[in-house]
Amino acid sequence: MNSHFLDPHRIRIADSLVYPKAGFIIADAALAELYPDFFQRQMGLPTLYIQSQEEYKDLNNVRRIYYFLSQHLAQRSDLIHVFGGGLLCDLAGYATATFKRGCRLKLYPSTLLAMVDAALGGKCAINFSKIKNQVGCFYPAEEIIIHPAFLHTLPTDELRQGKAEMLKAYYTNAELSAIDLSSSSLPCAAQILEYGRFKLEICARDPYDQGLRRTLNFGHSFGHALERLMDFGIRHGDSVVAGMRIAVDLSLHLGWLNAQAEPDFQALWDYPMPEPWKGFQRGKYPLELLSNALQDKKNEGEGLMLVLPVAARQVELHKVSLDQISALFTL
Amino acid sequence: MNSHFLDPHRIRIADSLVYPKAGFIIADAALAELYPDFFQRQMGLPTLYIQSQEEYKDLNNVRRIYYFLSQHLAQRSDLIHVFGGGLLCDLAGYATATFKRGCRLKLYPSTLLAMVDAALGGKCAINFSKIKNQVGCFYPAEEIIIHPAFLHTLPTDELRQGKAEMLKAYYTNAELSAIDLSSSSLPCAAQILEYGRFKLEICARDPYDQGLRRTLNFGHSFGHALERLMDFGIRHGDSVVAGMRIAVDLSLHLGWLNAQAEPDFQALWDYPMPEPWKGFQRGKYPLELLSNALQDKKNEGEGLMLVLPVAARQVELHKVSLDQISALFTL
Repeated sequence: MNSHFLDPHRIRIADSLVYPKAGFIIADAALAELYPDFFQRQMGLPTLYIQSQEEYKDLNNVRRIYYFLSQHLAQRSDLIHVFGGGLLCDLAGYATATFKRGCRLKLYPSTLLAMVDAALGGKCAINFSKIKNQVGCFYPAEEIIIHPAFLHTLPTDELRQGKAEMLKAYYTNAELSAIDLSSSSLPCAAQILEYGRFKLEICARDPYDQGLRRTLNFGHSFGHALERLMDFGIRHGDSVVAGMRIAVDLSLHLGWLNAQAEPDFQALWDYPMPEPWKGFQRGKYPLELLSNALQDKKNEGEGLMLVLPVAARQVELHKVSLDQISALFTL
Repeated sequence: MNSHFLDPHRIRIADSLVYPKAGFIIADAALAELYPDFFQRQMGLPTLYIQSQEEYKDLNNVRRIYYFLSQHLAQRSDLIHVFGGGLLCDLAGYATATFKRGCRLKLYPSTLLAMVDAALGGKCAINFSKIKNQVGCFYPAEEIIIHPAFLHTLPTDELRQGKAEMLKAYYTNAELSAIDLSSSSLPCAAQILEYGRFKLEICARDPYDQGLRRTLNFGHSFGHALERLMDFGIRHGDSVVAGMRIAVDLSLHLGWLNAQAEPDFQALWDYPMPEPWKGFQRGKYPLELLSNALQDKKNEGEGLMLVLPVAARQVELHKVSLDQISALFTL
């Protein structure tokens, strides 16, 4: 991968929607309906619209993108502009990375989650054989252009998922600014930039996810386990917050976190977790959740690799044996 | 990509066939028939056989490999062992590179062409929409294990294709040892290693094919053009030799090569070009060949980027205008 594309200054805030000058556009079909003037203009660039649904993030849609690029004789020196949320950035990024061994890629994330997390760091992927992100590669975009205007049409539920990943970053680093969890408030452009650049900085220091970058998985081991357990009936951001709540309980149980530090994590319980899912009773988690977490693809060998809080806004990667934590999994 | 996998010492000669200890095997179905004791042993590793034919180098077979790896719960820390010629190394290498964002890859090239060229340097690819290698990525194997024994069952035609690529390398570097073009002679293990390491050295110095590595395309611009013109009725190595003959004529015509240097290229004309294809009359090439060469994916802008000989065993990359060379394309 081109690691210099992980430079934090590859993210740029655009004050207004600017139509690309050359190349090809791959866009979320829903965006085209929300911004018809922008996407359906005359004399525009060749454009492919894709439905942004989990079941479309597959090899068939990769094939569709290849056909689109092939029919338009796209060269590897051509720019592919991708407008969409994390799902489309993952899918179209992957196709761009592998067409002619990699064309030029610019991402225009349209959701808060994609702006501060999914579009950053070069992880591209599609689902395969019912396993999320089973096929993919590392291919950072040469530029990530953020149009905060897109957030005005983002549903509250989607907005919350982005704030959940911001909250995760907030708890791993004491220098990040506080997040307003009230449902309708939009983070300002400066804060989006702050959080996006923070993620790229971490990725640049550990592009292949071998150490430091794993701290960004805070809340994700049990978050992913919960998603699978609920057959994806819970949204990703919500599940990560639930995973962080569990991680805090584990750290308290293991004595790595002092009980006096507990109030510092209040935002995790203030997070507006949606009905009907409010989470488990603290300290009484289902055993199935533990066995599911063991299957995570980042896990290796005995025990569990977990990102756990050791102070108010500080996490560490630790190998934890099942004996150490099984007392909390009693259902 | 892991550029340290381009270290010349990643190639190893194995004196006898050694069955891998762990991981998964993807092998050319024809090899399994030639070496039944090796491939069909009891208690072996999970193995997938693939027919090594050009039309199988496609997304459907990539999908087949993904299924195989997914069903056997392959992890990214698992080794995928690929036994086959250039086609299978390209195909299975590509699937390995993208499954779980990249598993560990070891290649066991079974043809001379793969041993000295195709399995080396990390270029993986499949055909798409009738265009060769239109989809792919860079993913060097962590080890390339050469069993010279495989060459004993290699058809003469296949052997010649490997010698053609060796001849190409020979003409780009004065330090490489001479090649025996007589049809039945096998290069010794030391020479295979010499040529393989030469290729990796070039790739290590220019992993993404931006400068030096392009000299390895000597003979390939017109070689590829010829393949397309003949609808792939000519083998790759043979077409590269034909392409080198044309390149020599162009250099003589342009005055970059002195007429006195011509005998140094005698091996190109000694090369046992197969019937019925013996090539064109020198200096009377079809105009269609020129227009076809212009479409090469490595070509950019006006004119032709060509690797041309400037001395006995020295080539340079040059931009050539059509005016400069059109006198040779008169048919």
